[in-house]
Amino acid sequence: MASLKPIEYAAATAEVRAVFDDIKQSRQIKDVNNFWKYLAHDPPTLKRTWESIKEVMAPGALDAVTKEMVYLAVSVTNGCGYCIASHGAAARRAGMSEAMFGELLAVVGMANETNRLANGYRVPIDPQFEQ
Amino acid sequence: MASLKPIEYAAATAEVRAVFDDIKQSRQIKDVNNFWKYLAHDPPTLKRTWESIKEVMAPGALDAVTKEMVYLAVSVTNGCGYCIASHGAAARRAGMSEAMFGELLAVVGMANETNRLANGYRVPIDPQFEQ
Amino acid sequence: MASLKPIEYAAATAEVRAVFDDIKQSRQIKDVNNFWKYLAHDPPTLKRTWESIKEVMAPGALDAVTKEMVYLAVSVTNGCGYCIASHGAAARRAGMSEAMFGELLAVVGMANETNRLANGYRVPIDPQFEQ
Amino acid sequence: MASLKPIEYAAATAEVRAVFDDIKQSRQIKDVNNFWKYLAHDPPTLKRTWESIKEVMAPGALDAVTKEMVYLAVSVTNGCGYCIASHGAAARRAGMSEAMFGELLAVVGMANETNRLANGYRVPIDPQFEQ
Amino acid sequence: MASLKPIEYAAATAEVRAVFDDIKQSRQIKDVNNFWKYLAHDPPTLKRTWESIKEVMAPGALDAVTKEMVYLAVSVTNGCGYCIASHGAAARRAGMSEAMFGELLAVVGMANETNRLANGYRVPIDPQFEQ
Amino acid sequence: MASLKPIEYAAATAEVRAVFDDIKQSRQIKDVNNFWKYLAHDPPTLKRTWESIKEVMAPGALDAVTKEMVYLAVSVTNGCGYCIASHGAAARRAGMSEAMFGELLAVVGMANETNRLANGYRVPIDPQFEQ
Repeated sequence: MASLKPIEYAAATAEVRAVFDDIKQSRQIKDVNNFWKYLAHDPPTLKRTWESIKEVMAPGALDAVTKEMVYLAVSVTNGCGYCIASHGAAARRAGMSEAMFGELLAVVGMANETNRLANGYRVPIDPQFEQ
Repeated sequence: MASLKPIEYAAATAEVRAVFDDIKQSRQIKDVNNFWKYLAHDPPTLKRTWESIKEVMAPGALDAVTKEMVYLAVSVTNGCGYCIASHGAAARRAGMSEAMFGELLAVVGMANETNRLANGYRVPIDPQFEQ
Repeated sequence: MASLKPIEYAAATAEVRAVFDDIKQSRQIKDVNNFWKYLAHDPPTLKRTWESIKEVMAPGALDAVTKEMVYLAVSVTNGCGYCIASHGAAARRAGMSEAMFGELLAVVGMANETNRLANGYRVPIDPQFEQ
Repeated sequence: MASLKPIEYAAATAEVRAVFDDIKQSRQIKDVNNFWKYLAHDPPTLKRTWESIKEVMAPGALDAVTKEMVYLAVSVTNGCGYCIASHGAAARRAGMSEAMFGELLAVVGMANETNRLANGYRVPIDPQFEQ
Repeated sequence: MASLKPIEYAAATAEVRAVFDDIKQSRQIKDVNNFWKYLAHDPPTLKRTWESIKEVMAPGALDAVTKEMVYLAVSVTNGCGYCIASHGAAARRAGMSEAMFGELLAVVGMANETNRLANGYRVPIDPQFEQ
Repeated sequence: MASLKPIEYAAATAEVRAVFDDIKQSRQIKDVNNFWKYLAHDPPTLKRTWESIKEVMAPGALDAVTKEMVYLAVSVTNGCGYCIASHGAAARRAGMSEAMFGELLAVVGMANETNRLANGYRVPIDPQFEQ
C-alpha cells in the first residue's frame, strides 16, 4: 500500500480550505507547504497544529528569527529532514544570515556532544542548580 | 564498581588546574561546575571541550543569551538532566527572562511535535527547499 | 566501498532460506521485504530477529493492529524511514483505518511535545506515581 | 539559580485556575498533577497544551486505553521519566492490565531494536511501500 | 498507582527461576541485577531477552570488552541512566581501563556532534558511499 | 531558498585550503568528503571539528577500528544517514570485517531494545552501581 498524497486546495473540503486560507494570508504566500497538504488528511490535527504554530511562533518575548532558529536547532537534533529544509528556509526569511546559521549549528553540535559527556560521566547536578 | 568521583582543584594535576583556572577567570567564578570536575578524569577531553565551548559560546553573529537558549533547547530535546539544569542557569545569567524561557519551551515542544508529524505523514520536501 | 546488497532467495544458504520460508508461510506472502534480505548477511541475527518478532507481534493481551500501531509510533518518534513505510503498511493490513492513523499520529505528536515540556520545566514525579 | 516551583491552586491567577478547574472536572480528580502546576508558569502554554491534550486524548477512532498506551510507548522511547510515570498510571486507570503492559514494552523494545537494524544495514524502502 | 517491584528469587515461579539460574551460572554471580528482577514480570520477555543477550554478547568476531563498550556507547547516546551504570560496570569487568573509557566517551561525544553537523548542513552522501 | 552547495578546493579560501590539505595528507586521500566541503561554509567550525576529530580518532588506548565502530554505533542509533555511510566505509577501511559489522549491529540493536525495557520498567539502579 502506497503512502498518502498531498491534498491540494482545489480538492480540499471547506474546513481544510479555511485553514489553508488563514496560513496563506498570515504568511503572505500563494500556496501552503507540503506539510499542511499532508496534515489535511486529518482536519482536526491540521487546524489544531496551525493554530498552535501561529500562537507559538508569533513574536513575543522572543523575536521571530530566534524562534525559527530554536525550531531549526531541535529539528537538526532530531534529524527531521523535512523540518530542517523548511525551517532552515523560514529562519533565513526571518533574518538568519549565513554567519548566524554557522554559529547556530556550532552550538547545536557542541550541545549534542556535551549532553553525552554529561551522561557518560554520570555527572551529578551541582547543588546550586537543584531545587 | 562505583562511578567516578569529581576531581577537585586541590587534587588536580597542573594540566587540569590550568584549564580550571582559565574557566574560573573567563567566567569570573570561584569554582568550576561538576561537569568539568568529571571531565578532568580525561585531561585531553577536558582541555578540548573547554576550548571548543569557549570559542563556540563567545558572542559573535549570535549573542550570548541566544546561544545559551539554543543549548538549552537541544538539552531539553535530548532529555539531559544535568545540561538542562546547568544551561538553564547559564541562560538566565545571560539574560533569559521567565517570559523568554516560557516561549523557548513552547517552541521546543512544537518543534518536537511537528518533527514527528512530518515523519509520520512521510511529507516530501517541497521543490523550493531542495537543492 | 559501497553498501551491502540484498540477498535474494535464489542466492541464499539453506539456513537463510529456512527463515525466509517461515516468514513467507507465516505472513502468507510470496517474497520477504528488503529488511530480511539485508539481515540475511548475518544469519544468526536474521533468525533471532525473526523469531523474536514472530513471538512479540503475535496477538495476545494486545491484538495485532494495536501492536502494529505501537510499532509505528516508536518508528515515527525515532524517524526511521524504512520502518515508518513498512510498519505503516503492516498496520493498515492489520486493520488501521485512515481515521485511526490520523489519531495515532496526533497522540505521537502530543507525547513528543509534552515529553519535552516535562523535561524543560524539570517537573518532579508526583508522590502517587513514585515507588 | 534554583529551578521553578509548582504553582498551587491557592496561589494561581484566575486564568490558571480556570484551566485547573477544567482539568479537575474533566478527569474527576481533586488536584492536578505536577505537570500542570509547572506549565502554569506560562499560562498560554498551559491553556493550549491542556486543550490540545483534551482533544487528542478523547476516545474517537482509537479508544482511551490505546491512546494512553501509545503515549506511554513514545515516552519510553524518549526516556522521559516523568511521562513514563504519569502515563503509565493513566494507562492503567484506562484499563491497561499487567499483561497488556508487558506486551506493550516488548513491542516498544523490538521496534527500537529493528529501527537501528534498518538504519545500520541501510535497507532501501521496498517499491510497494513507496509513493 | 505505584510502579512495579522487583521479583526476588524466593518469590519467583519455576519459569523465572530457570532464567535467573542460567544468568547466575553464565556470569558466575550470586544474584541477578534489578533489570532481570523487573523483566520477570513478563516471563516470555525475560526469557527471550536473556537468550538474545547471551547470544549477542558472546565473544565472536568482536571480543567481550568491545561489545560492552559499544553497548555503553549506545546507552550514553540514548541517555539511559540504568544502562550507563550497569554496562559501565560490565565494560570495566570485561577489561575496559579508565583510559579506554575516556577515549570511548570522547568518540561518543564527537559522533553525536558531527551527526548533527551533517544533518544541519544537509550534506549529501558522496557517490563512493552510495549503492 | 535552496540549501548550501559544497565548497570545492579551487574555490576555497587559504584558511579552508589549509584544513583540506591537512585532511588529505593525514588520510592519504585525493579529495575530502562532502562533510568537509559543507563545513567549509563556517571556517572556524571546519578547523575546530577537524582538529578535534584528528585528536579523538587517533589510536590510543583504543585502536582505530574500535573507534570507528563506536562512531558507527552512535550514528546508527541516531539515524544519521550520511554518517552511517561515511563511517561504515571508514570502519571497513580500518579493518572491520563483515562478521564484525554484523555483530556490531546486533549489539547496537540489543542495546537500543534493552535501554527501553529499562526505561519502561523504571528499573532502579542497583546499589553496587551507585556512587
